Amino acid sequence: MKRLRAALAGATGAVGQRYVTMLRDHPFIRLEVLMGNESAGKSYGEAVRWLDSTQLDERYASAEVSPTSPRSADGCDIVFSALPSVAAEKAEKEFAKAGFTVISEASAHRMEPDVPLIVPEVNHEHLGLIERQRKRRGWKGAIVATPNCTVTGLVLALKPLTDRYALKKCVVTTMQAVSGAGYPGVPSLDVIENVIPYIKDEEEKVSSESGKILGLFSSGSVSRARIQLAVSCNRVPVLEGHTESFYGEFGSPVDPAEAEEAMASFVSLPQRLCLPTAPERPIVVRRERDRPQPRLDRMAGSVPGMSVVVGRVRRGIGPRSLQFTLLSHNTVRGAAGNAILTAELMRSRGVL
Amino acid sequence: MKRLRAALAGATGAVGQRYVTMLRDHPFIRLEVLMGNESAGKSYGEAVRWLDSTQLDERYASAEVSPTSPRSADGCDIVFSALPSVAAEKAEKEFAKAGFTVISEASAHRMEPDVPLIVPEVNHEHLGLIERQRKRRGWKGAIVATPNCTVTGLVLALKPLTDRYALKKCVVTTMQAVSGAGYPGVPSLDVIENVIPYIKDEEEKVSSESGKILGLFSSGSVSRARIQLAVSCNRVPVLEGHTESFYGEFGSPVDPAEAEEAMASFVSLPQRLCLPTAPERPIVVRRERDRPQPRLDRMAGSVPGMSVVVGRVRRGIGPRSLQFTLLSHNTVRGAAGNAILTAELMRSRGVL
Amino acid sequence: MKRLRAALAGATGAVGQRYVTMLRDHPFIRLEVLMGNESAGKSYGEAVRWLDSTQLDERYASAEVSPTSPRSADGCDIVFSALPSVAAEKAEKEFAKAGFTVISEASAHRMEPDVPLIVPEVNHEHLGLIERQRKRRGWKGAIVATPNCTVTGLVLALKPLTDRYALKKCVVTTMQAVSGAGYPGVPSLDVIENVIPYIKDEEEKVSSESGKILGLFSSGSVSRARIQLAVSCNRVPVLEGHTESFYGEFGSPVDPAEAEEAMASFVSLPQRLCLPTAPERPIVVRRERDRPQPRLDRMAGSVPGMSVVVGRVRRGIGPRSLQFTLLSHNTVRGAAGNAILTAELMRSRGVL
Amino acid sequence: MKRLRAALAGATGAVGQRYVTMLRDHPFIRLEVLMGNESAGKSYGEAVRWLDSTQLDERYASAEVSPTSPRSADGCDIVFSALPSVAAEKAEKEFAKAGFTVISEASAHRMEPDVPLIVPEVNHEHLGLIERQRKRRGWKGAIVATPNCTVTGLVLALKPLTDRYALKKCVVTTMQAVSGAGYPGVPSLDVIENVIPYIKDEEEKVSSESGKILGLFSSGSVSRARIQLAVSCNRVPVLEGHTESFYGEFGSPVDPAEAEEAMASFVSLPQRLCLPTAPERPIVVRRERDRPQPRLDRMAGSVPGMSVVVGRVRRGIGPRSLQFTLLSHNTVRGAAGNAILTAELMRSRGVL
Repeated sequence: MKRLRAALAGATGAVGQRYVTMLRDHPFIRLEVLMGNESAGKSYGEAVRWLDSTQLDERYASAEVSPTSPRSADGCDIVFSALPSVAAEKAEKEFAKAGFTVISEASAHRMEPDVPLIVPEVNHEHLGLIERQRKRRGWKGAIVATPNCTVTGLVLALKPLTDRYALKKCVVTTMQAVSGAGYPGVPSLDVIENVIPYIKDEEEKVSSESGKILGLFSSGSVSRARIQLAVSCNRVPVLEGHTESFYGEFGSPVDPAEAEEAMASFVSLPQRLCLPTAPERPIVVRRERDRPQPRLDRMAGSVPGMSVVVGRVRRGIGPRSLQFTLLSHNTVRGAAGNAILTAELMRSRGVL
Repeated sequence: MKRLRAALAGATGAVGQRYVTMLRDHPFIRLEVLMGNESAGKSYGEAVRWLDSTQLDERYASAEVSPTSPRSADGCDIVFSALPSVAAEKAEKEFAKAGFTVISEASAHRMEPDVPLIVPEVNHEHLGLIERQRKRRGWKGAIVATPNCTVTGLVLALKPLTDRYALKKCVVTTMQAVSGAGYPGVPSLDVIENVIPYIKDEEEKVSSESGKILGLFSSGSVSRARIQLAVSCNRVPVLEGHTESFYGEFGSPVDPAEAEEAMASFVSLPQRLCLPTAPERPIVVRRERDRPQPRLDRMAGSVPGMSVVVGRVRRGIGPRSLQFTLLSHNTVRGAAGNAILTAELMRSRGVL
Repeated sequence: MKRLRAALAGATGAVGQRYVTMLRDHPFIRLEVLMGNESAGKSYGEAVRWLDSTQLDERYASAEVSPTSPRSADGCDIVFSALPSVAAEKAEKEFAKAGFTVISEASAHRMEPDVPLIVPEVNHEHLGLIERQRKRRGWKGAIVATPNCTVTGLVLALKPLTDRYALKKCVVTTMQAVSGAGYPGVPSLDVIENVIPYIKDEEEKVSSESGKILGLFSSGSVSRARIQLAVSCNRVPVLEGHTESFYGEFGSPVDPAEAEEAMASFVSLPQRLCLPTAPERPIVVRRERDRPQPRLDRMAGSVPGMSVVVGRVRRGIGPRSLQFTLLSHNTVRGAAGNAILTAELMRSRGVL
Repeated sequence: MKRLRAALAGATGAVGQRYVTMLRDHPFIRLEVLMGNESAGKSYGEAVRWLDSTQLDERYASAEVSPTSPRSADGCDIVFSALPSVAAEKAEKEFAKAGFTVISEASAHRMEPDVPLIVPEVNHEHLGLIERQRKRRGWKGAIVATPNCTVTGLVLALKPLTDRYALKKCVVTTMQAVSGAGYPGVPSLDVIENVIPYIKDEEEKVSSESGKILGLFSSGSVSRARIQLAVSCNRVPVLEGHTESFYGEFGSPVDPAEAEEAMASFVSLPQRLCLPTAPERPIVVRRERDRPQPRLDRMAGSVPGMSVVVGRVRRGIGPRSLQFTLLSHNTVRGAAGNAILTAELMRSRGVL
């Protein structure tokens, strides 16, 4: 298969580092350009405060960081953006205008009606929005967004359920890892031996993005799903892995055992296409009563960190309701991994 | 006022220690007998692994631990029981049979229909069950139970709401401190940098005990409140203070600002009686967007640890629903403090 | 006694907040001016991210933050400086030139030969340097420095030993709290479930400052003590309280029991003067084999956080050596508390 | 190469589990018998509280746990013992008497003069003691001990130094992970946000075992090295990986750069024999100023967890002294991994 040459904007940040790790041995995506602003001109090894316990590959360590601009990405087939939202707002449009397909982690363009917001197993058909986006904006390139890290795990766990039952209402309480705030991110003085019951803008994002992703694509546009959500987001002293406690009400009775089985057996297009970053099981179901746990389960599955892990599937209040706990690796499936899988899918579908 | 002489069963455990600290300077309760089984005969100072950062008072350190039996409590007016449930089952009955009023932390007798389960600000009238209990069981003494640490904070926060609005349904997700499991309790290998999404029997207790406490006392018995609860209990790496994320649906519209004001201004009988362990405000409302936090707020209020702290009061899904976050000190209001306040109330009402 | 009116530079930082808490009920120091640069013009309550679990006093919350300049301190008798070192370098000189006595936490001027570096129980006689400083610099005011938080506990524990035995060599390994780095300070992504074996410039400061503080004052100057130190500084996931593992070699045999007794019975000038922030025992000796522990012991003593806590006093290698573990509250005795005690001492000695 | 059939005593404990993980894909050691006492008769999957984030292999999960006795090990070539010391005392002798070679983690027999205490890269020649042990005790089998987890990393880091310079004195302060205490081990109530400056018997073991391991083997016995040690052991809130701060004095000048190079280039017999569990570099030297860190470096090296990681190599006090920080994975190199490497070495040398 033809190589995809990739550029990465925001390469020195916490999520940027995750791309570098995940793309090191990728079968067909070659990360060729590392972009940064303050660090442009330095070697990546000098510029980065490397956070992972695996060693930074020498090939990247010695690479020079380029400024964040279309010119730096010259010759690349794709631009991954791990930029902070404010910077992303303008920069991603410039890349798209210059002809690049940008796959973005940033929240800047997620809710624009002609920008697909993709979790490959859940709503790959939303990629159909690209055509409309290009036409409307007169771009040769495009912006494809990936969701907030808390949303990704949630909609992935919900997909096999919403395929079977109409989801009416859900109450979600999250316990989120500190890496979700990037680096330096959450001060240790705030979070050690503590819970912080608030994450800026997070609850709003979970509500709005979930509705868009689970919405129906037809006639070139996405109509938002009508799910009522009440979300409470909390920060806890965990390094990686967002835990979410889910309660949902459906339009018809839901048997917990059937729901569990539907999740455990769920596969989608990325699995059928055998995409390299697609886990065999997008949802790993644990049946022990005290799982999933972030430290033990965040790297579960055939592609570590790409599966959402679900446990404690049980009745809620009455036969139409369901409760469970889910765990999603916020910087793998919730960020770099989901974007890479999106790129693989787009390539496979000929959109790239 | 006449002194109350108290004996304490389970004195060396984590909750037992909290009694020792809280009763040290009590205006009228004198802790005179410390009971334990394995440690009987030793001095309390030798027997206990003292967990608090305040120094153990010399008076208690040198006291001899007595065996757990009615004979040890001879001359006492009250027996506080911080026994584990299995031990409590039999021992508490023996104390009651021997004529002692037992105020118990244990779950053993909580759900028996003639045993009052008391949070003084919420359901002091349930103390009326004692008469029936004595008659039925032929005891001169009695057993008065106090609820599970997760329940106490919840019903206290709900009381001013259920006084105004009919609570139909609630979804509660907890983030509980390790001290809730006693000492040695939760292994550090399990909980450091982790969330454990399960606490044995806890969710069942929250459901059943809440219904009883919020139930109506009339004609000598308590009819359980009809609240539907979906509860998810999680252990987090916090030392003291249970955080609970609450979503509720009521029978009529609830204005969040009114609800918040109702909580902030709530006082009850213990406040009117100026009981020494009654906080001026049973519910402390924080209006900052990122509070309550266990490390910062668990000791809030005029009697440290006796107030539940509520924050982020806001609309849920639709006008009849409400969300907020609450924090309750699990070994103060959730255990020793609530029992001591119950004793104060009983004395003040002439039940002791 | 006449009131001392105080201004505080760097009021919104983590150490600045500690001053605000400690001076709230001070018998004769009145904190009248809160200074800050970015926050000048705001109310202190708005400007500060309040880190303590005790409530910020309304009196300070509503006070307006003034710019950091001598004009703001007009009418004050003393200026406490909790400025970062770079800012302190220039600002403190301006205050001193303008006639103020500055008591400083910053490292900027600590090692200047005419600036006293004070731990009141250890080297109060070094205040004699002020005269020389004023003469040499032509100032009406003066700069008095207080040491690095790691040094303060160390020299306090050593003082009764160096009074008896000639200290030749010591090896010190520290385990320091995150609050030592201020706020936001140490990122949680760095320190949760980890040890960081390096703190910038800390080891050099421990060596140089210890030598100065334990040096002899005579004929208007301080000659540095000849102690050889090997120091290793580590950051651990602890909020407050620096733990230090000490090994020392002396010029003559040291009996551990005698050394322990010398520390336990040590008092100095601040104790004899009954200064309000002077703890009855500057050194609290714990005899349990597993103490001191930061969470349990950092607030030990009659003035919480002002005593250094020493434990595990034992023989090292051979009769001339000694080992022990010490614990010192880094933002109380290691910062604000030590500066306040210095001010009390200076007032009592007529230097203020 | 001929397969080695192995039995494991203490299979369900924390260290036992590490053996199961490390031997899963071993090229020639087959773990065939899992022994336990309370769990005998159950399947291993049922009996164990699996602590690792990697999945327990189905092959072991379904295996039946056998009672701890020579009969269970029938047909095995080797017995690994991860028994607690009290149980090990008697059981290991019975295995040895029955003809088995026991490689033991327990402290029970470590200091017996005819029992080799082995770190393969450091003192493989001590295996010569086996002959004497068999003769003296009349056993066909033998007991080979491996050291305490804190000692293993220390002597490994010291070996290339003691080969060049005479080590006279060292001062070691440790910051040890909670997994060193097994499971359930250290209560979270003790260690969260804390340092515990004491580990029972640990300091004595470091002193005595280091002397034995670094001693000279000749004429069938080991003469202990004359190193004076002052050790302070601390428990910190870290899951895996013991950090040790080292200060040493040598008989002649030591150049830090030379010492660092000697450590970085050190290889020994296991490396020359290309044993499967021997890391290419027994000592990994990090040159960044803030390394090693347990969370980032405990799995460093070509065989994860088998290398000791050394950093901050620098002068101590004077030209004959040296300081550095070392990190050693306490349940891999400090326990199961060191024992497995010892077995590989013994097989390769024909002792098994």
